Amino acid sequence: MPLGERSGHKESRYCGVETEFYDDIPQLLAYNISSGGFDFAVAPLMDPAYRPSLMEKGTGGSGVLPFAGSDLVLSPSQWSSHVVGKISSWIDLDSEDEILRMDSETTLKQEVAWASHLSLQACLLPAPKGTSCANYARCVNQILLGVNNMQLWLRIPLLKTDDDSMDINSNSLVDSWELWNSFRMLCEHHSQLSIALDVLSSLPSANSLGRWFGESVRAAIIDTDSFLTNARGYPCLSKRHQKLITEFFNHSVQIVISGKPVHGLPKGSADLAANNNDSNFDDWVLQKVKDCVGISCEGFEEENKALFTAIEASHYKDKLASFSNPANKGVHRHPLRSYLDYVGYLYQRMDPLPEQERFELGYRDFLQSPLQPLMDNLEAQTYETFEKDAVKYIQYQRAICKALQDRVPDGKALMITTVLMVVGAGRGPLVRASLQAAEETGRKLKIYAVEKNPNAVVTLHSLVKLEGWENIVTIVSSDMRYWDAPEKADILVSELLGSFGDNELSPECLDGAQRFLKDDGISIPSSYTSFIQPITASKLYNDVKSHKDVVHFETAYVVKLHNVARLAPSQPVFTFTHPNRSTNKSNQRYMKLQFDIPSETGSSMVHGFAGYFDAKLYKDIHLGIEPTTATPNMFSWFSIFFPLRTPVVVHPGSSLEVHFWRCCGPAKVWYEWCITSPSPSSIQNSNGRSYWVGL
Amino acid sequence: MPLGERSGHKESRYCGVETEFYDDIPQLLAYNISSGGFDFAVAPLMDPAYRPSLMEKGTGGSGVLPFAGSDLVLSPSQWSSHVVGKISSWIDLDSEDEILRMDSETTLKQEVAWASHLSLQACLLPAPKGTSCANYARCVNQILLGVNNMQLWLRIPLLKTDDDSMDINSNSLVDSWELWNSFRMLCEHHSQLSIALDVLSSLPSANSLGRWFGESVRAAIIDTDSFLTNARGYPCLSKRHQKLITEFFNHSVQIVISGKPVHGLPKGSADLAANNNDSNFDDWVLQKVKDCVGISCEGFEEENKALFTAIEASHYKDKLASFSNPANKGVHRHPLRSYLDYVGYLYQRMDPLPEQERFELGYRDFLQSPLQPLMDNLEAQTYETFEKDAVKYIQYQRAICKALQDRVPDGKALMITTVLMVVGAGRGPLVRASLQAAEETGRKLKIYAVEKNPNAVVTLHSLVKLEGWENIVTIVSSDMRYWDAPEKADILVSELLGSFGDNELSPECLDGAQRFLKDDGISIPSSYTSFIQPITASKLYNDVKSHKDVVHFETAYVVKLHNVARLAPSQPVFTFTHPNRSTNKSNQRYMKLQFDIPSETGSSMVHGFAGYFDAKLYKDIHLGIEPTTATPNMFSWFSIFFPLRTPVVVHPGSSLEVHFWRCCGPAKVWYEWCITSPSPSSIQNSNGRSYWVGL
Repeated sequence: MPLGERSGHKESRYCGVETEFYDDIPQLLAYNISSGGFDFAVAPLMDPAYRPSLMEKGTGGSGVLPFAGSDLVLSPSQWSSHVVGKISSWIDLDSEDEILRMDSETTLKQEVAWASHLSLQACLLPAPKGTSCANYARCVNQILLGVNNMQLWLRIPLLKTDDDSMDINSNSLVDSWELWNSFRMLCEHHSQLSIALDVLSSLPSANSLGRWFGESVRAAIIDTDSFLTNARGYPCLSKRHQKLITEFFNHSVQIVISGKPVHGLPKGSADLAANNNDSNFDDWVLQKVKDCVGISCEGFEEENKALFTAIEASHYKDKLASFSNPANKGVHRHPLRSYLDYVGYLYQRMDPLPEQERFELGYRDFLQSPLQPLMDNLEAQTYETFEKDAVKYIQYQRAICKALQDRVPDGKALMITTVLMVVGAGRGPLVRASLQAAEETGRKLKIYAVEKNPNAVVTLHSLVKLEGWENIVTIVSSDMRYWDAPEKADILVSELLGSFGDNELSPECLDGAQRFLKDDGISIPSSYTSFIQPITASKLYNDVKSHKDVVHFETAYVVKLHNVARLAPSQPVFTFTHPNRSTNKSNQRYMKLQFDIPSETGSSMVHGFAGYFDAKLYKDIHLGIEPTTATPNMFSWFSIFFPLRTPVVVHPGSSLEVHFWRCCGPAKVWYEWCITSPSPSSIQNSNGRSYWVGL
Repeated sequence: MPLGERSGHKESRYCGVETEFYDDIPQLLAYNISSGGFDFAVAPLMDPAYRPSLMEKGTGGSGVLPFAGSDLVLSPSQWSSHVVGKISSWIDLDSEDEILRMDSETTLKQEVAWASHLSLQACLLPAPKGTSCANYARCVNQILLGVNNMQLWLRIPLLKTDDDSMDINSNSLVDSWELWNSFRMLCEHHSQLSIALDVLSSLPSANSLGRWFGESVRAAIIDTDSFLTNARGYPCLSKRHQKLITEFFNHSVQIVISGKPVHGLPKGSADLAANNNDSNFDDWVLQKVKDCVGISCEGFEEENKALFTAIEASHYKDKLASFSNPANKGVHRHPLRSYLDYVGYLYQRMDPLPEQERFELGYRDFLQSPLQPLMDNLEAQTYETFEKDAVKYIQYQRAICKALQDRVPDGKALMITTVLMVVGAGRGPLVRASLQAAEETGRKLKIYAVEKNPNAVVTLHSLVKLEGWENIVTIVSSDMRYWDAPEKADILVSELLGSFGDNELSPECLDGAQRFLKDDGISIPSSYTSFIQPITASKLYNDVKSHKDVVHFETAYVVKLHNVARLAPSQPVFTFTHPNRSTNKSNQRYMKLQFDIPSETGSSMVHGFAGYFDAKLYKDIHLGIEPTTATPNMFSWFSIFFPLRTPVVVHPGSSLEVHFWRCCGPAKVWYEWCITSPSPSSIQNSNGRSYWVGL
């Protein structure tokens, strides 16, 4: 039973429970799932007393391994949807004790093979015991190369000591992310190796936590010790924990409750940790029970005027369940039920996703090739989508208004006709915005709508006719770079920007159009700047890597970034200004940037760079997607992603030095990029061999 | 004219000269080569006053670039064999000055294109100006992707400051190897990017210098300032410089003399730096001149009883040359001639290569797949080669002698017959060694010669017949692992070792044969250990990389290591002892090793690991190829090389942690390896997917 659907969400979230070994799996599931309310159980598959080395020496034996049950005790779909295999936690493949090491390897391989035989969706691997994990990783890597679709969740405690004064020579674990990082690098970033985070009672800093949202975290195991107790004796979480769990929900991370119940309910007077925030939780539980009761048993509420404690309410629920299903008679409430209820409450309490986010859900972390609107003609569907971005055109309209007012004083509004050229008019949205600006400001306008795509020109003609703009708008079917204009323009309006600003060749196009702009003419936009920031993005990295070639690693992608960690504030890269009156007209650019990752973050993995732009349309009117200044509710652009062929780990105290080039050839424009610190990478996309934009 | 052939060398070494810009290339060559005696000239191709940005602004111009001459002034073979193109040394692609940067890029590309047009073999790129070289590398990388077979020699000053107290915040260059390393990493280890080392008057430590012998150094440019002056006023080099130049000769590095003549010769009384070592040089010069004169002009010697100084002698030579070629009349001795003569002297003075080394010249740095003698049957030619290794069989004979004497006291020599089994007898060399040992010690022997290769058994039979060994030797055509022996052996003799000891499955074979060894029986060898050490090996790395697949990076190769730098002493990896009476019979192994590279070495690149073995045949008689204990004059084994998919840079103070596994499956044995420090690599050859030895 999922935690419930939130309004507007297509996806549900699930909550599992970690159990002890119990060799009657059907009963274990009945207790935890059918009766207990959890969605799945993380259950040991093998008797924890088993040791291969002891087996061999014992009686010849039947050769039957001490697994819990046989594959027949559950249906295949029950196995795969309700059971996550928990690998024996005693295994220690990096022990000094060779026998233990060999036993561990044998057991690990037997258990995973069994889980694979059962078609489980995942196995939970115990956390590495020390700071060294090479032999464990070697064995897991061997398994990963042979396993079916099963995921291996490596359990990692959510630990990071921020104490810099700590003795670094001591072998104690300082940052569990480092452990994970070693493990996954040894396993060559295998896409079926993911993480189950053990959430403990104290949490690392926000920056440090943030790193995990760029990693493939599949489950968060919350120990009952991490819960506080609210005034009514219910388990609840600290605000920081709540925020973290909410983020997990946002990132499709499944929750698993683990440990013994440590909240002795009911406890009317208990006030171990009064947590104002959760006073609502009690009411919520009450309401839930009322809802439940209201449906299944009329009149129940009357009998219970007094305020329910959660435990009481749930007891009634269990009672009702046992009434309605005689087979469940005598089933007691699951001891971890109140933890599950609290997690469900946190989930349902979340704010619904805004409409735009909901629309973009399907695009999250999905790599798209950037458009090449200069080389290729856009399709009607593409125009359709982008024309709906009202916010964008409102910004344009505001910019055009200001430009018109600056260009023509109020007193001369009726005398002067401003020549405005929309270069790259598409199906006309900027023509409309210009006309609306003229109307708003009372300025007279003559518009040329220049468009190179003959298919869009068809639509433009019918639009002009339909709207009765024939006297004002002249349609020109031509590439702006080669058009022989009959007169010069006061204002040049264009929307040629890509996610990285200049990546759809706005500079080259506007340099061409500049010929027919008056010496004191205005370009809207008047300038634009690209930005980058280093990110952890293991999902994107693996998607790029899956193509097994260099070309995909040297391509920039348009992507709705979600499962990423942004490691440092973005920095500007290339700026272009229009009109460009400088003597050096080159649109080649070279920029060296240095990023300093906050030291409290700890070491981090850089899989590549997120790219953005910000455009100054006119004076203070801007438009952009750079996160700190992004125009709200605009959906025309996702970010761009520049991958690194070899992801790089940046340790605290060392900085990341990045080089970006914009290179121009006779027929194409391309970017090259590399890093030189902490250690040099190769230069990516040399000569634009993999990715380029055609002129 | 090469520096001369040394006895026994097939290759010659060449010496070039660096020149100034001179636009009459034929005359430049006549002066430096035909007359001056150098083999080639490193000559600027373009007028150093040229700047593209000035050209454009100047008169419209003819569009002719200011190159030295046209392609027609020399024949194609003259261009390619006598001229190395020297790229304008003013270029600075990482300057803060954008105009200079753009001019530099344009010029560099024009010059390389011209050199390419002329089919030059190499161009000399000026050293990067500062510590930052990303833009220079980006531009060179673009060139490398498009260039023909031409090599680009990046000039690197041979500099390393050992002063640890130096302010690391200052931007001064501390270790020029780091600069090279950044540059080549940015250029993705391109095989046509190589090094021209600028040898200066002071040299870094031996360890630091050693790194360069694992890199692709093509030329050493020796500045005249680096020379000392001997008692007679000749230029000479310090002993450390001499040693370095000799090493360059050994590694096929060409020498280039550069700079102004600073040794004012002749200088009979000069004794700036009396250099005992080179008292021979004067005599050598005299002899050379005598030889030369003796051939070309009888009676010349009579006229010149006095001791020649080099300059005088050479003057005569020049005179003779001008006599024999009237066109050369008036040609003067080249001002750098005495430096060239000294370099020639150093070359010819070198010890001739030992015969074995000469035989192995063709194998240097050539990757071979290891034999699989268990899975495949060896060919006659292979037996033929290995049987010639007298030293190896002498060691075996010594070991067998000792074992026989220990087994049978002198007094019982005639009474007791020792049963000796040669397992893997091949064509019989160990049978012969055993019989010789029996004869030497007066012990009685019964020999079983067990061999699985039926083709070798044919030879064995004819050998036994030929030698009349029928009464002593029983030939068994069987795999030792499955042979049902009629009696048990006192001594088991085998030669199943590969370059890495156990890599030809000696452990598995001997474990099988152990069944028919008496409880107190002896195995020769009684144990063996493999060793590894980290090496720089850019040539091997590039050869592996050229296959463009993972398989080749996960394969171990047999190779005669030459162009490598050994970065730390080797360490033992796996040991096997025979007979193996332990209860744990597993031949799986796991070893974690930590290498500390001497801090005075500086940062170094680890391309992989050299592997060796040492075997204890019996008691103190050993056999092996581990460099510090290697058995002299044995040629049966080259080293083994384990590559790293991603070479790793180790900085001073951080250590290299390496993991090696020997894994055993039902049908194969394989190694996996990885590093975990300074940063984790992936685990190579997981599951033996790329490289394995068949059982």
